[in-house]
Amino acid sequence: MKGAVLYGPRDVRYVEREEPKIVEPTDVILRMSATCVCGSDLWPYRGIGASGEPTPMGHEYCGIVEEVGAAVKKVRRGQFVVGSFFASDNTCAICHAGYQSRCVHSEYVGAGGAQAPLLRVPLADGTLIGTPDMPSEDLIPGLLATSDVFGTGWFGADAASVAPGKTVAVVGDGAVGLCAVLAARQMGAERVIAMSRHSSRQKLARQFGATDIVTERGDDGVARIKELTGGLGAHSVIEAVGTQEAMMQAIRATRPGGHVGYVGVPHGVQLPGEELFFAEIHLHGGPAPVRRFLPKLIELVLGRKVDPGKVFDLTLPLEQVAEGYRAMDERRAIKTLLRP
Amino acid sequence: MKGAVLYGPRDVRYVEREEPKIVEPTDVILRMSATCVCGSDLWPYRGIGASGEPTPMGHEYCGIVEEVGAAVKKVRRGQFVVGSFFASDNTCAICHAGYQSRCVHSEYVGAGGAQAPLLRVPLADGTLIGTPDMPSEDLIPGLLATSDVFGTGWFGADAASVAPGKTVAVVGDGAVGLCAVLAARQMGAERVIAMSRHSSRQKLARQFGATDIVTERGDDGVARIKELTGGLGAHSVIEAVGTQEAMMQAIRATRPGGHVGYVGVPHGVQLPGEELFFAEIHLHGGPAPVRRFLPKLIELVLGRKVDPGKVFDLTLPLEQVAEGYRAMDERRAIKTLLRP
Repeated sequence: MKGAVLYGPRDVRYVEREEPKIVEPTDVILRMSATCVCGSDLWPYRGIGASGEPTPMGHEYCGIVEEVGAAVKKVRRGQFVVGSFFASDNTCAICHAGYQSRCVHSEYVGAGGAQAPLLRVPLADGTLIGTPDMPSEDLIPGLLATSDVFGTGWFGADAASVAPGKTVAVVGDGAVGLCAVLAARQMGAERVIAMSRHSSRQKLARQFGATDIVTERGDDGVARIKELTGGLGAHSVIEAVGTQEAMMQAIRATRPGGHVGYVGVPHGVQLPGEELFFAEIHLHGGPAPVRRFLPKLIELVLGRKVDPGKVFDLTLPLEQVAEGYRAMDERRAIKTLLRP
Repeated sequence: MKGAVLYGPRDVRYVEREEPKIVEPTDVILRMSATCVCGSDLWPYRGIGASGEPTPMGHEYCGIVEEVGAAVKKVRRGQFVVGSFFASDNTCAICHAGYQSRCVHSEYVGAGGAQAPLLRVPLADGTLIGTPDMPSEDLIPGLLATSDVFGTGWFGADAASVAPGKTVAVVGDGAVGLCAVLAARQMGAERVIAMSRHSSRQKLARQFGATDIVTERGDDGVARIKELTGGLGAHSVIEAVGTQEAMMQAIRATRPGGHVGYVGVPHGVQLPGEELFFAEIHLHGGPAPVRRFLPKLIELVLGRKVDPGKVFDLTLPLEQVAEGYRAMDERRAIKTLLRP
């Protein structure tokens, strides 16, 4: 089969790769219905933190179970399933506490490269959620979004303790930031401030429930949030970028006692201990334990209560994956969906 | 009157100072029953972060109200009171959320220097808690402890989400760390691991309810906590030192999804964003909002349910304040109580 492989900075190719096989009896092989390019894929694509070796790409997926390992009990052949980018047994103490992304047996599903027609998913019973029926075609983008981007935005809002009546700010207008807006609104936030200077992203933020748009960044952005919140700062701020500037903006825009949920993978970020101490905020984040939220998010999508699939403003056949990366890199697209 | 003034590194003197006066109608003047030296006083005492100017010292206090400003309504002359080191109006949105240390009108009470016979306390109605009667003499150390050291240890445990059944580790065997052990046990923690290599402190940790003592530090300390917790790390870790080593030790000893409560005032601490992200812990701390906890803590002390006053293993007359600092600096004393 062919699949996406990153060879070096801005060099993604659709090339022949080995077909995945069942390795452990708890594995399944999935035939991809749709996959996509993640904002976090752009870091190695831009040469930051890349391994240097040719790397199969992609970690977001939904599709139909094609082959089932001998020990798989819950997931059935022919079933439509969605899973997280981290496989988890969903039985250990860490999973039970809701941190399946840090399961004691966690495996990175993306190691196999999900931007391909077939994918091996380890620990299938603990990782995958099947839908009751075969979902209709128009729901596929939304279901794919639950696999990471919506699940991660939701975790950001959850980590920021979003709750009814609160004022929430979102730093970052990428697909995850936009999904965090959607999540915050679903969780009952009274006011959701999206920080964005791009009109197409502002528009989607509004559709997802943003009540305010702030175009300023850095210190000016912080000042604007303070202005909108009686000088105090937001109750909850979601950081969905991963840079030093975004992180400090999030911390400084949060009121004392408030919560920062951070889901942007940090690159070169150093948090100054003394400022953090006197900011007196709560800080929580990390790789989203998407599995915790999947059943609820899938239900929301299947029930057509939300459509996180709107973050995909570019759909390409999988063989054009390189263009999918380029469009996101150049910010011509918010997020690229790929169809095998 | 005379009071403690820091002139330079390791140079605290008991010298003539101006007597405090009512400045705002919301002030009171307190006659000190007891005051003490804080672990955080040792930072400027050692020349770290000191202002360079002669500085009145001390921010922990309890005593009898001597003079009352015209606008003070709740606090009465002659009443025995305890308060936090931050004055707060206790009416603003931040106070209502339980963060009185960051009250929009907060003032540092220690600015007046509590290591003296008299102290001006601003925003008296929002800051001070009176006892129903004049407390008996033997309860004074415990009541004084609620003003900061016990309140701060309690906040550390609260910030670390200590709850029944959890395993808690405490980094730092100073008075705050020991009080965090006491707090964790009061909150129902199943297991409380004190990290200490000093026998007198280990002994007090045991008295306060520690179930385990870990003498290793740094990576070895982390490894030992992991060993004691099935390889996972503690649910809750309280950091009560303020150094890079202690902070990283706390973060690394916490299981994914667990909580770090940090109350040691950080000096030169930088938190690596990427490690923090993948640690996937909750982080919360800052100057303890002692006022939130004061009513409960005073009740515990008056009811003789706990005796945080045991952290004072040296009692001196106020005029010997310099020896009080020296004994703590040289770790001959855990904490020095000073009697005017």
